[in-house]
Amino acid sequence: MTANQLFENICRKKSFLCVGLDSDITKIPPHLLSTENPIFEFNKGIIDATADCCVAYKPNIAFYESLGVKGWQALHDTVQYIRQHYPDQFLIADAKRGDIGNTSEMYARTFFEQFDFDAVTVAPYMGEDSVTPFLRYPNKWVILLALTSNKGAADFQLTEDNVGERMFEKVLHRSQQWASSDQMMYVVGATQNEYFDAVRQQAPHHFLLIPGIGAQGGDLGKVCQHALNKQCGLLVNSSRQILYAANNEQFAQSARHEAQKVQHAMQSILAERGWITL
Amino acid sequence: MTANQLFENICRKKSFLCVGLDSDITKIPPHLLSTENPIFEFNKGIIDATADCCVAYKPNIAFYESLGVKGWQALHDTVQYIRQHYPDQFLIADAKRGDIGNTSEMYARTFFEQFDFDAVTVAPYMGEDSVTPFLRYPNKWVILLALTSNKGAADFQLTEDNVGERMFEKVLHRSQQWASSDQMMYVVGATQNEYFDAVRQQAPHHFLLIPGIGAQGGDLGKVCQHALNKQCGLLVNSSRQILYAANNEQFAQSARHEAQKVQHAMQSILAERGWITL
Repeated sequence: MTANQLFENICRKKSFLCVGLDSDITKIPPHLLSTENPIFEFNKGIIDATADCCVAYKPNIAFYESLGVKGWQALHDTVQYIRQHYPDQFLIADAKRGDIGNTSEMYARTFFEQFDFDAVTVAPYMGEDSVTPFLRYPNKWVILLALTSNKGAADFQLTEDNVGERMFEKVLHRSQQWASSDQMMYVVGATQNEYFDAVRQQAPHHFLLIPGIGAQGGDLGKVCQHALNKQCGLLVNSSRQILYAANNEQFAQSARHEAQKVQHAMQSILAERGWITL
Repeated sequence: MTANQLFENICRKKSFLCVGLDSDITKIPPHLLSTENPIFEFNKGIIDATADCCVAYKPNIAFYESLGVKGWQALHDTVQYIRQHYPDQFLIADAKRGDIGNTSEMYARTFFEQFDFDAVTVAPYMGEDSVTPFLRYPNKWVILLALTSNKGAADFQLTEDNVGERMFEKVLHRSQQWASSDQMMYVVGATQNEYFDAVRQQAPHHFLLIPGIGAQGGDLGKVCQHALNKQCGLLVNSSRQILYAANNEQFAQSARHEAQKVQHAMQSILAERGWITL
């Protein structure tokens, strides 16, 4: 998928919501636990209930890995289900990988060949040759960590170098030499309001993947005020608030209700900017 | 395993070699491809042939993931095989994970509960709360990336802050507030000779995991000259040079021959320091 196609989807669906599939076996409704593939059953319910409210799904790979072979199978079934039933969705593997070249190649193979994801999140610490193997796949994306939503972001990402450039700014500017804004996005946490202007100064044209709305305390309005660009340029993720809206047989309807609330807020923002009419 | 136990193993086995199980389905001997679980069969051959030459094994998770469910199963079988037959081996998941707290918890669960690894490699970019969930397991280790062996290491790891501290030094000094040298090691590439003194200045007591010997061009003698500490303090990894020493039915014997060469060199170094007698 190209950046233009993603923007078209956003306008058509009146949403730039990404639903994070952080599907936790200890939190899903108990009635699903007796099914053969509980995580997949849960995801299917969530996906069918939210697909018209969002433009992207983001399985958080840790939650699948932690279940071993069964979790890996549930991830496989989930990706296949979305591809078959909702082919316009942008599919992000939230994996935060990154290693020396021959190993990043293997991770790229995992997420772009074994699974047909559109994008994978990558950690920048190991530099250019840890990222470029993911960029060899046409129409596939790297979503590079720039400024994350957690407290620990301050430990290294805000470090200023000897000419006053902060680490997240260095990541933004160096990595633009590796790929265009049609193959690279950046993770910037919704909790990092005071830095959005600095991010947009370095990366005015790139899509940003924004986690941290909801359970982590980020605010959609504030994010949009500072981070929207000329083609929206945002995918805002919500996971726990949607997935665990209810813990009973109505979990999917409750998830839909939460997703709709976010989508309605996004719709107003998109209309205010003149990209859609209501 | 404690640092003392690891040092005891090193002295007893006269080796501080870690064999990296970067087991690549496209590189293993063709006669194994007709078996039911080729990667596991390959690993079993390598492990049986090298276990008396090394103190640690390090499966590179990317290579297993890239095969999907089958790869995950091969990893499971490999870990179980080592635990059953060679319980004194230190088992490292080379995974380079790291995410917000609730997600790192899941990764920790994967490698320390689903699999019984002793240690997992972690990327530091997301800071303290992305690392600490791995530290809640007694006797389990985090091996934090400090200065990696690849070219891209120069992109961000060597950046100097406004008081002249380089990023890898900041990682070394900050992270020592999170855990003792009985739960934390650091990755420092064998190719980073000029920085070993700086590493040992920041982290004199910690074990270092040293990749980059062999295919990546690092030199054992030079590494030891600068990086040995009072309790050896090194695990030196070799992967491709051992695994792919031969591509025929004698692959295991050839791997053993390569592992023995490294072990002999290590034995001399350990004897020179007076830790063992020959």
